[in-house]
Amino acid sequence: MKAELITIGDEILIGQIVDTNSAWMAEELNLIGVDVIQISSIPDNAGRIIKALDEALGRADIVLMTGGLGPTKDDITKITLAEYFEDELIQHKEVEEHIEQLFARFGKEITELNRQQAMLPSKCIALKNRQGTAPGMWFEREGKIVVSLPGVPYEMKGLMKDEVLDRIVSSAELPVIIHRTVLTTGIGESWLSERIEGWETDLPRHIKLAYLPSPGKVRLRLTASGSNRTELMHSIDAAVTELQSLIGHLIYGHDQESLEEVVGQLLLKRNASVSTAESCTGGMLAGAIASVSGASAYFKGAIISYDNQVKMDQLGVRSETLEAVGAVSEQVVIQMAEGVRKKLKTDYSLATSGIAGPTGGSIEKPVGTVWIA
Amino acid sequence: MKAELITIGDEILIGQIVDTNSAWMAEELNLIGVDVIQISSIPDNAGRIIKALDEALGRADIVLMTGGLGPTKDDITKITLAEYFEDELIQHKEVEEHIEQLFARFGKEITELNRQQAMLPSKCIALKNRQGTAPGMWFEREGKIVVSLPGVPYEMKGLMKDEVLDRIVSSAELPVIIHRTVLTTGIGESWLSERIEGWETDLPRHIKLAYLPSPGKVRLRLTASGSNRTELMHSIDAAVTELQSLIGHLIYGHDQESLEEVVGQLLLKRNASVSTAESCTGGMLAGAIASVSGASAYFKGAIISYDNQVKMDQLGVRSETLEAVGAVSEQVVIQMAEGVRKKLKTDYSLATSGIAGPTGGSIEKPVGTVWIA
Repeated sequence: MKAELITIGDEILIGQIVDTNSAWMAEELNLIGVDVIQISSIPDNAGRIIKALDEALGRADIVLMTGGLGPTKDDITKITLAEYFEDELIQHKEVEEHIEQLFARFGKEITELNRQQAMLPSKCIALKNRQGTAPGMWFEREGKIVVSLPGVPYEMKGLMKDEVLDRIVSSAELPVIIHRTVLTTGIGESWLSERIEGWETDLPRHIKLAYLPSPGKVRLRLTASGSNRTELMHSIDAAVTELQSLIGHLIYGHDQESLEEVVGQLLLKRNASVSTAESCTGGMLAGAIASVSGASAYFKGAIISYDNQVKMDQLGVRSETLEAVGAVSEQVVIQMAEGVRKKLKTDYSLATSGIAGPTGGSIEKPVGTVWIA
Repeated sequence: MKAELITIGDEILIGQIVDTNSAWMAEELNLIGVDVIQISSIPDNAGRIIKALDEALGRADIVLMTGGLGPTKDDITKITLAEYFEDELIQHKEVEEHIEQLFARFGKEITELNRQQAMLPSKCIALKNRQGTAPGMWFEREGKIVVSLPGVPYEMKGLMKDEVLDRIVSSAELPVIIHRTVLTTGIGESWLSERIEGWETDLPRHIKLAYLPSPGKVRLRLTASGSNRTELMHSIDAAVTELQSLIGHLIYGHDQESLEEVVGQLLLKRNASVSTAESCTGGMLAGAIASVSGASAYFKGAIISYDNQVKMDQLGVRSETLEAVGAVSEQVVIQMAEGVRKKLKTDYSLATSGIAGPTGGSIEKPVGTVWIA
């Protein structure tokens, strides 16, 4: 099955925002066995939308559009799609009720503009947007599918996960695709590649490997495709097991796990707690730990000591140490970690002190110098 | 003058990388008065490249392509362009010399693959790539322009600045374009739209307005286009001034400013300092404040009190209050804010306490309930 993505919005064409939606959607579609063959960004203009849709439907089986669905008058996707499908807008009762509920929940008064968001082409299936007021739309004609989604990333993602991906899977005969992602940390992409070269070469032809690097981590994604699910499962599991025996100490998790979730699970298992003391990271480490649902079972809190006075008063860092070796030093991060662990009464603690830049560097401690305890 | 951008590369279509080049190029082109009317991402495939180029040249005066110019065999843009322009590849002497110099500078041995990068279509102007070995190419035919650039962002940017933008300016009569962005917070898109409806309707025809919403913020972008820069500046400044008088209390900044930068500037101006006490945000607020370069001048630190014991011990929240009204309450956030301000000796402080979810909600305090002091 071939797909095209169309992003509607002048803000992309003037370069004010980067289109991150398309990459996310392309990845999700790939995961279910759909090939994305073109991505196009076009202006909020009815003629251009119709032209782009025509061209895309000439090449692909499904076209997913984002953007142009807001309550304001410059958002014209809905009207244009009604025109394209020779259709008229009608009130979708369940959409209107959802919008009313959303407004009631936030205790805000509903406007006429918002109420009009329930007016949709009669031929479309309205897709429920749990994150906002603009519904998605699903059209089918002559064996082809057109999906229209809002451009706000979290609304688009919610709709893709809740409504769109499953519908695509059940509307077409897609190949069986199985993915496994092995999450590594502590090694760069090229070194990792050298370490697993032999394993990579020996992978069966129906398994493909992708390196997905991000700062501090490299994800290895294995994709098996074919027709027999059981066989694919066996061969992909065997490949992962072999990888585990090769680089087990570099693997922190699998698939959708995050490093902070894995750390949280380990703490829960040990019935242990954690705190942080942060200088250069300014609370981002605590924020990452706290972002995991249920983190309150092991995360007690943090002391963010951006200022040296706070390091001394709140964490017990000694002024002699600060004077002798400065805040960005091994001794100071150790004192910070010990200080917060004692003060917040936790089993473990983490501390950071560094020069994040762009200013503040020196010859002895250039920008990028970071101590972690 | 109308432009289209074509990004060549399978890695974009499988969602492995986000196309950030196009937004950067679109912004630069807009600044010199070129309208970008479409951006397309297509695979490394000769047929698809030719088709996309044909379609783009049917709509635009200039087409800028990126990607597919590396030394490896899957990079086929150059050969495809030679075919498209019914041309042959010839050795470009000055390009070869540049490649030799680059390799000499880095003390690396030149490979045959690299030397072949000096083989370019005879009809193109070779554009010097000061950052790498792949030259850009400039073609002209029947009054239209085709530019091909490498996809590596810093090489593409160098070529645009050094070679491409000036050539475009001198090859066409371009209009003057001026942008102003007004940043608002504290009001949703539809309410804002109602508040400024009259102003929007009265905008002169040469000024266009776009709403750019993101969580908690709506940016209003005004674009003036015409031929007289002074007049355009006057009219766009007048529109911004009028907007200021209408919704001044909702405007926190202009153009590229961020909310955390604006807050930092205000603190610097008052020679004042800030701290945070966070429960549900777990350090993210401190992290946002600290992310601004130079924040150490006003940001002293934070106490992240995820646990109630930490709220009492470190922030002086009273146990009676916690027992009576719970941690997510007006009284507790006030005590947290007062506690951190006193303890970290700052002029201002912020505190948050809420139920971020997905678990932990109740009927009286559902997920999403947040108190901010």
